[in-house]
Amino acid sequence: MCKEDPDHQITLISYEVNLFMDLVLIGSGNVAAVLGRKFISAGHKILQVVSRNAPAASELADEWDTFSTNYFSAINTKAEVYIIAVPDESIPEVTKELNLPGKVVAHTAASVPMEVLSAISTHYGVFYPLQSLRKEMTSLPDIPIFYEGNDELSKKKLGTLAKSIAREHSVESGNNERLKLHVAAVTVSNFTNHLYALAEEYCHKEGIDFSQLLPLIEETANRLKFVSPGKVQTGPALRHDRETIRKHLALLESHPRLKKIYELFTQSIQDN
Amino acid sequence: MCKEDPDHQITLISYEVNLFMDLVLIGSGNVAAVLGRKFISAGHKILQVVSRNAPAASELADEWDTFSTNYFSAINTKAEVYIIAVPDESIPEVTKELNLPGKVVAHTAASVPMEVLSAISTHYGVFYPLQSLRKEMTSLPDIPIFYEGNDELSKKKLGTLAKSIAREHSVESGNNERLKLHVAAVTVSNFTNHLYALAEEYCHKEGIDFSQLLPLIEETANRLKFVSPGKVQTGPALRHDRETIRKHLALLESHPRLKKIYELFTQSIQDN
Repeated sequence: MCKEDPDHQITLISYEVNLFMDLVLIGSGNVAAVLGRKFISAGHKILQVVSRNAPAASELADEWDTFSTNYFSAINTKAEVYIIAVPDESIPEVTKELNLPGKVVAHTAASVPMEVLSAISTHYGVFYPLQSLRKEMTSLPDIPIFYEGNDELSKKKLGTLAKSIAREHSVESGNNERLKLHVAAVTVSNFTNHLYALAEEYCHKEGIDFSQLLPLIEETANRLKFVSPGKVQTGPALRHDRETIRKHLALLESHPRLKKIYELFTQSIQDN
Repeated sequence: MCKEDPDHQITLISYEVNLFMDLVLIGSGNVAAVLGRKFISAGHKILQVVSRNAPAASELADEWDTFSTNYFSAINTKAEVYIIAVPDESIPEVTKELNLPGKVVAHTAASVPMEVLSAISTHYGVFYPLQSLRKEMTSLPDIPIFYEGNDELSKKKLGTLAKSIAREHSVESGNNERLKLHVAAVTVSNFTNHLYALAEEYCHKEGIDFSQLLPLIEETANRLKFVSPGKVQTGPALRHDRETIRKHLALLESHPRLKKIYELFTQSIQDN
């Protein structure tokens, strides 16, 4: 490809040395905030935060000692890479406002194909962080990055950016794989958190201190570094302990949502 | 109570100074192994490991430089506290073999009333570790202990033992509270692990690297130290993102167990 396209090749040579990039962040929510911090701690420079939410954009800009705007027309055109970290449903609207020829533009959504960005630039892609990100985080967790680019330039730049913050957790991955990953992420994070939330609600109603469960929750998650979850399943369901299951279901009479989940999991674990 | 029972009072005086106790462990499985290590690291002495599984008992005894037997009749009667860490269903059988007058005897089961031990001694109770314990653990996790005793002597001794290994996570708690705790523990550990197992199986079949999900799993669990799970629920279900849910369910056509769980959780999260 490069041999047939001398202009492209020149670009390749010039960007390969840029390990530290000038970036513009579009968005001012949880993903923008935490990715921004990761970028800065990896040595990149954020030239500007662009967001309709002016106070949030300004707060992030203050944190990073940089500039912000809530006018898309005032976007800084000097950056190399533009990261659009906005909710999935806002991507089309933001896209309409942007025109960044020659730049690399990527969104952070798992389930949105990169082609939605093709009107902004000829170099576009996806930069999906597989992590639950909250502005309030006091420390930066590991964030695996699944990136994709429509051409060599965007692949190289997004790949370099991904590697700089995610090291071995940076993976080039297409739309289909990202969608599959998202299903797994929903399962291990959204659904798990729902179990935690139901347990907390149950404890609260029953006068039990939920915080006494935290060591167990941590152990169940952290042991996955050493053991396969399929090999360490335990509990009344797995050992077909009908008497305990009966007692538990009796206690759950006044917790219908948790009872339904208890019944389905008991069945699902036994179907193994 | 003590005033009416001078013998009892004398006992009280003599045991209150024993912060470091001589123990006998009955059982040689995961709970016995990890509790034993905790006891030793807290300064207690394990006089003997008693288990029908002679090789397992002998292995633990070797680890702790102590004795083991697979004959209940050869049990060492010099200990202060006897911990019966065997599967729930084996407790009645073990109980029949033991006669330890004057000693404190406790089992480690959440769902078994302490009264099953009343034939062994007049001092009996429960010493329930709310944690997922595996012999293979390379480090000792925090283990909240919920203990109960039928009289002052057993309460004091089991309480002191609990506090020595669990500090602020040692809680006196009756049968009913323990049963309720167990429901919560099953929810946040057995069910959560089942979600992890289904996700792993799904990743394996779809050619995705499950280990890329570990940072997300850890963050989802570890953030509970700072945030309530009810306040950090996210995902397609919560935002009623029908298009993403539809795509995910299509991907789950060949994963019927995970699909059922996906549907129920989507419903349950939206019922909030």
